[in-house]
Amino acid sequence: MPSTSLCQEETCTPYSLMDDYSEGAHPQILEALLRTNSTQQVSYGGDEYSNAARQLIREKINCTGDEADIFFVPSGTSANLISIASCLRPYEAVITLDSGHIACKEAGAIEATGHKLIVVPAVDGKMTPTYLQKAIQQNQFFPHMAKPRLLYLSNASETGTVYTKCELSSLAAICKNASLLLLMDGARLGTALCSTKNDMTLRDIFDLTDIFWIGGTKAGALMGEAIVVKKDLAEGFVFHLKQHGALLAKGRTLGVQFVELFRSGLFFALASHANHMARKISACFESLGYPLAADTETNQVFVVLPELLVRRLQERFRFYIWEQRDDEQAVVRIVTSWATDEVQVDKFNAWVQQWTASKELATE
Amino acid sequence: MPSTSLCQEETCTPYSLMDDYSEGAHPQILEALLRTNSTQQVSYGGDEYSNAARQLIREKINCTGDEADIFFVPSGTSANLISIASCLRPYEAVITLDSGHIACKEAGAIEATGHKLIVVPAVDGKMTPTYLQKAIQQNQFFPHMAKPRLLYLSNASETGTVYTKCELSSLAAICKNASLLLLMDGARLGTALCSTKNDMTLRDIFDLTDIFWIGGTKAGALMGEAIVVKKDLAEGFVFHLKQHGALLAKGRTLGVQFVELFRSGLFFALASHANHMARKISACFESLGYPLAADTETNQVFVVLPELLVRRLQERFRFYIWEQRDDEQAVVRIVTSWATDEVQVDKFNAWVQQWTASKELATE
Amino acid sequence: MPSTSLCQEETCTPYSLMDDYSEGAHPQILEALLRTNSTQQVSYGGDEYSNAARQLIREKINCTGDEADIFFVPSGTSANLISIASCLRPYEAVITLDSGHIACKEAGAIEATGHKLIVVPAVDGKMTPTYLQKAIQQNQFFPHMAKPRLLYLSNASETGTVYTKCELSSLAAICKNASLLLLMDGARLGTALCSTKNDMTLRDIFDLTDIFWIGGTKAGALMGEAIVVKKDLAEGFVFHLKQHGALLAKGRTLGVQFVELFRSGLFFALASHANHMARKISACFESLGYPLAADTETNQVFVVLPELLVRRLQERFRFYIWEQRDDEQAVVRIVTSWATDEVQVDKFNAWVQQWTASKELATE
Amino acid sequence: MPSTSLCQEETCTPYSLMDDYSEGAHPQILEALLRTNSTQQVSYGGDEYSNAARQLIREKINCTGDEADIFFVPSGTSANLISIASCLRPYEAVITLDSGHIACKEAGAIEATGHKLIVVPAVDGKMTPTYLQKAIQQNQFFPHMAKPRLLYLSNASETGTVYTKCELSSLAAICKNASLLLLMDGARLGTALCSTKNDMTLRDIFDLTDIFWIGGTKAGALMGEAIVVKKDLAEGFVFHLKQHGALLAKGRTLGVQFVELFRSGLFFALASHANHMARKISACFESLGYPLAADTETNQVFVVLPELLVRRLQERFRFYIWEQRDDEQAVVRIVTSWATDEVQVDKFNAWVQQWTASKELATE
Repeated sequence: MPSTSLCQEETCTPYSLMDDYSEGAHPQILEALLRTNSTQQVSYGGDEYSNAARQLIREKINCTGDEADIFFVPSGTSANLISIASCLRPYEAVITLDSGHIACKEAGAIEATGHKLIVVPAVDGKMTPTYLQKAIQQNQFFPHMAKPRLLYLSNASETGTVYTKCELSSLAAICKNASLLLLMDGARLGTALCSTKNDMTLRDIFDLTDIFWIGGTKAGALMGEAIVVKKDLAEGFVFHLKQHGALLAKGRTLGVQFVELFRSGLFFALASHANHMARKISACFESLGYPLAADTETNQVFVVLPELLVRRLQERFRFYIWEQRDDEQAVVRIVTSWATDEVQVDKFNAWVQQWTASKELATE
Repeated sequence: MPSTSLCQEETCTPYSLMDDYSEGAHPQILEALLRTNSTQQVSYGGDEYSNAARQLIREKINCTGDEADIFFVPSGTSANLISIASCLRPYEAVITLDSGHIACKEAGAIEATGHKLIVVPAVDGKMTPTYLQKAIQQNQFFPHMAKPRLLYLSNASETGTVYTKCELSSLAAICKNASLLLLMDGARLGTALCSTKNDMTLRDIFDLTDIFWIGGTKAGALMGEAIVVKKDLAEGFVFHLKQHGALLAKGRTLGVQFVELFRSGLFFALASHANHMARKISACFESLGYPLAADTETNQVFVVLPELLVRRLQERFRFYIWEQRDDEQAVVRIVTSWATDEVQVDKFNAWVQQWTASKELATE
Repeated sequence: MPSTSLCQEETCTPYSLMDDYSEGAHPQILEALLRTNSTQQVSYGGDEYSNAARQLIREKINCTGDEADIFFVPSGTSANLISIASCLRPYEAVITLDSGHIACKEAGAIEATGHKLIVVPAVDGKMTPTYLQKAIQQNQFFPHMAKPRLLYLSNASETGTVYTKCELSSLAAICKNASLLLLMDGARLGTALCSTKNDMTLRDIFDLTDIFWIGGTKAGALMGEAIVVKKDLAEGFVFHLKQHGALLAKGRTLGVQFVELFRSGLFFALASHANHMARKISACFESLGYPLAADTETNQVFVVLPELLVRRLQERFRFYIWEQRDDEQAVVRIVTSWATDEVQVDKFNAWVQQWTASKELATE
Repeated sequence: MPSTSLCQEETCTPYSLMDDYSEGAHPQILEALLRTNSTQQVSYGGDEYSNAARQLIREKINCTGDEADIFFVPSGTSANLISIASCLRPYEAVITLDSGHIACKEAGAIEATGHKLIVVPAVDGKMTPTYLQKAIQQNQFFPHMAKPRLLYLSNASETGTVYTKCELSSLAAICKNASLLLLMDGARLGTALCSTKNDMTLRDIFDLTDIFWIGGTKAGALMGEAIVVKKDLAEGFVFHLKQHGALLAKGRTLGVQFVELFRSGLFFALASHANHMARKISACFESLGYPLAADTETNQVFVVLPELLVRRLQERFRFYIWEQRDDEQAVVRIVTSWATDEVQVDKFNAWVQQWTASKELATE
């Protein structure tokens, strides 16, 4: 009986592969908070740590302070709503995927700032030039239609896929041609940049977008996202932070964390770990013949599993049922992170293998 | 050559069948404005004409002042945005068809009041129970998703179709069950009620909705819509009118017009005329074998025509190319109104018949 | 007994001197609506009457289409909220008098578009350079304070006073220096321009402001205001009209009215009449020694009257008690308009004289 | 020479008495974050620490889960804007002091959610029944005026004063009578409750308000405020958090901190320390005859000082010049906190004493 071999205790809590924010912060980050705790700092983002973090991020991008301003906010929803509210006029609209985080996971945050979302279907989790152009064309009946002005996309996407430089360039060219700004949600930008599929540098992303943000919350910080804003859009940006409650009095809390993430490659190391864990799980599923519902390009695995296996796995692991296909099958989402314990991943895979083997035995 | 026979003058202006608001107001309405012009009235909707209009509308609905409040606003967009803003909390969303007026013809007016639109495909221009239920079910991931709270629909629909009592009852039952309010946009409610397809009274509509409005602009008034609000939603409603610039100082201007429309059946007579004109055009197309793209249930005709006929018609008439099917065919929208001249309709039909006959002759 | 001599009938309705929108429209305007009624026009403000009205207004201003765009909206609140929403970024604030229409008579319409009002005391109903500068200086603690970006003022003011060219120039210079836009609410601009106190042309006002609007509602139209927007602020303006429900399908209704007002000086003739009526009332009060609470520069009279006279006047006339000073005195507001009947004004004055005389007799 | 005796090093950095958020968090809080870091938790506020913190706070209030819901947000501006947006309809307004944080330190955050602020002068930093009633009375011209619906006040006030139970009860009674909700901003509630002037329990505050929040940021946390919402206002509240970007994925970060603050009295101990430090400074000033500009009831000292003393103090300490009285005097604000070093306070006082003594010597 497999359950005994993997978990002796009756009471063992299921291990979470639900998301990439179940744990706190990487210990190095907490230690930095402790180490810097007693220094007195200027408030509201003017502290030395925030400034150092800005400098480190600019170095990674390979841009100067004349090219970009950087702002730290506590959450991804803050990053999105502030970025959009800051650069759109009231009648301007956002083009987004139907699966876009702003379209279905932020409780109407963008609309609450007054802006319409124009929703487009995803292909492999991504925006395509065809759909983008169609959305632009179908929203030109002025002034009866809100005017498309910004393309919002996420990299990595909501299903964990990654934009190639070629893909992003195509979209950016359409945007430029149609006077659209391009905003990249980088809640999982670390895992995108560390994907084997990725062929972009941070400088490429900076060049091809108008605003992008680098997620800290899902990358090992307690919280915090760094918004990189091209200089010509940066004027007055900090007012928006303040107005939306995202300008923390102790801005140091975000600054210190981003210093740790970027001063010696921790950000990338943690993202690589997350991706590696996902690939291990993904590879195991593939080797056993379970079909993936999306390519595993970053730290998310979408796989079609039989109901019985799902239920067995749920005894020891927590994860989302993404889509109930029918009574017998479901698409399951498994998310790994900087904190994912490889021992647990190995147990997970063993569990899958054992169940599959026992099943095959029974069928024979 | 047909053109000579129908229009001798080189310079004759094309007759508009573009929309139902190309002319001013029915003369009886303008005369009433003149007649009442010099009396002194209380401002901001408290005048005797507005009160009389409210009373007349309540009589047509067969409801009392304890059941409904009635508010007059200058435009349909005002009616929609005020109705929605007045009864939703900031995190609540509206379910609408993708072709809904608020979704694609009001420049983001609803989002500008802070509310998300959840967009659903139309079937025969209408909301169906299946899509409504799906939209409700797919937006239950609280608090990450805005909460569905109001169903918006138009009767007649954007393609001129009409809800039956059975259809509206099904939708209303789903709404009630899911705690959704139901708002009916009645920009063309007159034509809907006068449709041969219609089986509802104003009382039915009042009973099955929470707010509905009766369009005056497209029904022979200079401007103005009457919003009928169930008593429990009416508290504070007038503040919304004021806040959105829709509470006219000379409210009498709207009141007088609605008195004229409702004191002796003018509203229904004008709508019937519009429908009759559309049926004549529609019947002509059908008799000649041109396929309709939508049933002609009210005052809009959607028909698939060959490009050559379209171009010929454009010499004498103005109308929308609704959809370019390919190089050879287009869906054309023809709209009639209270003001449509039957002589022009007959000319239009003759023109279609002549072109078709000459075409057949050529083909033989 | 004075009451018998002035009004034989027991049941005569009090004549309203409450406001300048108690009657309908000047008959010439209604006749123009009738005359133009049956022509077919392009909708949403593209009609020939709106274009002609734009041309006429530009001629009065003495400016070209390259300098200014003109938009018609149904109400003053629409004009204010659209003008402000169209040119401010979300964190920018408006400086206004505490008595400003947007501050206390529009149900929070400006705040509903997201913008803060910075409120300053009025001096003679007007903004002063001192208070303006103080408001700017006290709101510089960025980014904690919303950034002052627009000065809103009304001409004529809420108490009927008028800005001189010197006064407006001083304010405009401060605005320019502090990068503030200047918006003039012209709900009663006609009476201001026709005031004996006025020394500005429409061109002066155009030069010294960024946006101003010309009120039609209080100047003899059924409704409607013409917003004059400097070219560099006009881009996208029409979207705001649409989004706020102020872009009427039958834009002709507003266009026709402004053509009548401006094609032959009707606008100015009506304003002059209103001012003249106010001066007659004002002069009567002064001659009898009743102190004015504000100079009568346009069509509003503010006068301090004994309670007993107030009550006597209320038997035959309607007007606002502006401020209850104590048990024995009150400030009363009397408003005249284009429609004010000089016979009634004479009766009003006679009534005041008779009461005063009888009072003096009694005291002797 | 005093400078040598107090600071040997040429390069010593001035010690900040600018505000109560210059340092990080109390070490016990950081240690708790470290200790709990690796446990896996449910996201978005459903974690066990947040639940434990809610339970602890309810115990301090002495209320049950049926009476109040508690929500954690990252900043005070978030707490205010979410509380207000969640319980007001669009046309409802907030009454606040002119010095209220929402009125002048939050970049128009409340207006950005659509609501008007009605501003009232402060007396001793506080709202008075007289001004409150006047504000209510002067804003009753419906529907032209936004409707007063909520009283916002801060305890401790912006000038560090404290409401007594009698004062708050009077205001609460007026609110109840006028159907106003009462929201207490508790950014510095800890210092208020620990003031010698205070005579309220948390239960009193809970009973007298509808929503109040307990500030963590200024009380020793890295960030975070706990909003206590009466049950009947709590429905849907969490949507507002999400919509405004204040629902942190790792809600644990806030939960853990509030557990530490409330599990054994740390919250009150830290506030008491801050108050004690302020009293020491205040007492020193008073003993030397410098007039206080406000009573020192909590952790803020407002004192009128000669310019020369101000400049001397600035060599070693940082603080705000609150108001420049003239060339010779200024009101200075000194803020102490949980982190204020008593050694520095003693140095500060010594410095003041030495300068004063040397001055007196010179004068003799």
